[in-house]
Amino acid sequence: MKLSKKTALLFLLAMVAVAAHAGDRVKWKMATTWGSAAVPIITASEKVAEYVEQMSGGEFTIRVDSSNKHKAPMGIFDMVKGGQYQMGHTTSYFWKGKDINLMPFTTMPFGMTAPERMAWMEFGGGFELMKRAYDKYGLLSFQGGNTGNQMGGWFKKEIKTVDDLKGLRMRIPGFAGEVVSKLGVSVTNIPPGELYTSLDRGTIDALEWVGPGMDIKMGFHKIAPYYYTGWHEPGAEAQFLVNKKAYDKLSNKHKSILRNAMRLAAYRMYIEFYHMNSEAWATMKKDYPHIKVKTFSPEIMGQLRKITNDLVAEKSAKSPLFKEIIASQRAYMKKARAWTIISDLDYIQGK
Amino acid sequence: MKLSKKTALLFLLAMVAVAAHAGDRVKWKMATTWGSAAVPIITASEKVAEYVEQMSGGEFTIRVDSSNKHKAPMGIFDMVKGGQYQMGHTTSYFWKGKDINLMPFTTMPFGMTAPERMAWMEFGGGFELMKRAYDKYGLLSFQGGNTGNQMGGWFKKEIKTVDDLKGLRMRIPGFAGEVVSKLGVSVTNIPPGELYTSLDRGTIDALEWVGPGMDIKMGFHKIAPYYYTGWHEPGAEAQFLVNKKAYDKLSNKHKSILRNAMRLAAYRMYIEFYHMNSEAWATMKKDYPHIKVKTFSPEIMGQLRKITNDLVAEKSAKSPLFKEIIASQRAYMKKARAWTIISDLDYIQGK
Repeated sequence: MKLSKKTALLFLLAMVAVAAHAGDRVKWKMATTWGSAAVPIITASEKVAEYVEQMSGGEFTIRVDSSNKHKAPMGIFDMVKGGQYQMGHTTSYFWKGKDINLMPFTTMPFGMTAPERMAWMEFGGGFELMKRAYDKYGLLSFQGGNTGNQMGGWFKKEIKTVDDLKGLRMRIPGFAGEVVSKLGVSVTNIPPGELYTSLDRGTIDALEWVGPGMDIKMGFHKIAPYYYTGWHEPGAEAQFLVNKKAYDKLSNKHKSILRNAMRLAAYRMYIEFYHMNSEAWATMKKDYPHIKVKTFSPEIMGQLRKITNDLVAEKSAKSPLFKEIIASQRAYMKKARAWTIISDLDYIQGK
Repeated sequence: MKLSKKTALLFLLAMVAVAAHAGDRVKWKMATTWGSAAVPIITASEKVAEYVEQMSGGEFTIRVDSSNKHKAPMGIFDMVKGGQYQMGHTTSYFWKGKDINLMPFTTMPFGMTAPERMAWMEFGGGFELMKRAYDKYGLLSFQGGNTGNQMGGWFKKEIKTVDDLKGLRMRIPGFAGEVVSKLGVSVTNIPPGELYTSLDRGTIDALEWVGPGMDIKMGFHKIAPYYYTGWHEPGAEAQFLVNKKAYDKLSNKHKSILRNAMRLAAYRMYIEFYHMNSEAWATMKKDYPHIKVKTFSPEIMGQLRKITNDLVAEKSAKSPLFKEIIASQRAYMKKARAWTIISDLDYIQGK
């Protein structure tokens, strides 16, 4: 078949126009810290993939690899930084060993509740501080969903005084573990799959996990009668990490789709946790009426708070950015908490 | 220029492919109940328009008309039903006069807090019930953002007993107005622009508006020293109404973009209210330290609760769907509140 020059040109232009659309196809991979059964925290990553594919009409797809697949739950930071994965779903305080400035973006003992923290992140300067903290790693970090208030953990014996904590063998990771170890708790790290047996056989005396919604599948309520309320992770926020170079290559449309999909999945996760915690707690109480909800005594809480403040002061002295982040959080919390007290707290107490 | 049949066919196919993309352009209009200054409730509609345009790469645009433009703040239901606007942003309890079944989707006195309600809507069957209630009007209804706990209002005198409410002239609209009128409150309806002067001159003795974030612009704190905590709108949810015929014409991609944009704007509104309430309350307390936060006495609260229950029973007897919605909300709230109490409530009290 022969084409005139004009025809060929027209045809070429038309094909370029089609190609411009088709060429916009993007395939990404996301690695999660969580195993595939860790509902609803794993759900946030799956929802991002679903939203992005649907909203881009299939132009932009994201394959989610849970830790069952990539086998490196604590390797998310490095894999996204290195570009092996374009993005990941994890939490910021896992990297406190790499960089203390990343820790406060997840949660702080005696810190903000979930809505207070979300307001700080979105409207109180939190997001900008997080951007600064991650910038030097070539990573962008976004809110990845809040678990809501986490419970203080399951204990085989009642904890009445600070002395009862001395020598207690407990699984409690991260900064909270650092805090309780100053009160003599022997902090141990045990893989999730061995926690139930360890608690059952007395290898450990206590452990904290998340809240009723995720704890119920672990079965701790069957073997430890005391469920303590939380102080250490009042509104723990997960994070999406995105490789900055990969992000910069996206079209504006795809950037917008990705950002909004992450934000929506994050907000949704907070509400799904609320739902699952409510349902699971109702089930636990019904099936195991012996469970006793306890709050640590004012003496213990006072000690925990003092140690938290001392450790924060220590870390602040070493890092000006850490100091700035904590100051921003505390100033914001002061205002937000005053509102929480005259709104939700007053209302629920009035019932 | 001459084209062979084959060339012409190829060319045609290419042009069709281009046209298929270009032809997908959609222009919608959204009417809001709110005036253009009603931040942050008006912001939710503006955010939907912004997200939809960005995520569709400009294919799908929505023009937002505030009530300053269309002059029919209470006409949203009819304008969207009639197709004059493809969608609207408003609240469901404005239509209780048309259909009592629509009322409980906004808020109920002594009902769920914002996260409890959002969890009920998204995971506890609320959305499906709302769909059923709106179906016969050819309307789809979606969550439109939560204001959080609303305050009980500004009072010029302290209210200590049920007797203090008798004859009190108060602006308090909707179902809550129905409740307090049974205790002898003289409920009046005054346009927003005249509220400050009416309270200042003593035409009314009290009023409720929203919460610090929106109240501060009205200036009520300068003239009424008692700020009562809330009981009547513990987590008021706005709604997006969408004309079903218009929605059905959208491509799957645009449906997904619109739905997710609405959900994101709704969640974001809850957090922006939290932020604005926190900031405004801090400012009010600083500038007007005379403001006294009060909670209605157990005697008054008991009466308000009893009347609420009586009125709900009355309405339930008239509508099986209303009865079903209330039963669903109460069963859900029972579980969710138990969780709220051992998580956020316990944590905040422990501080």
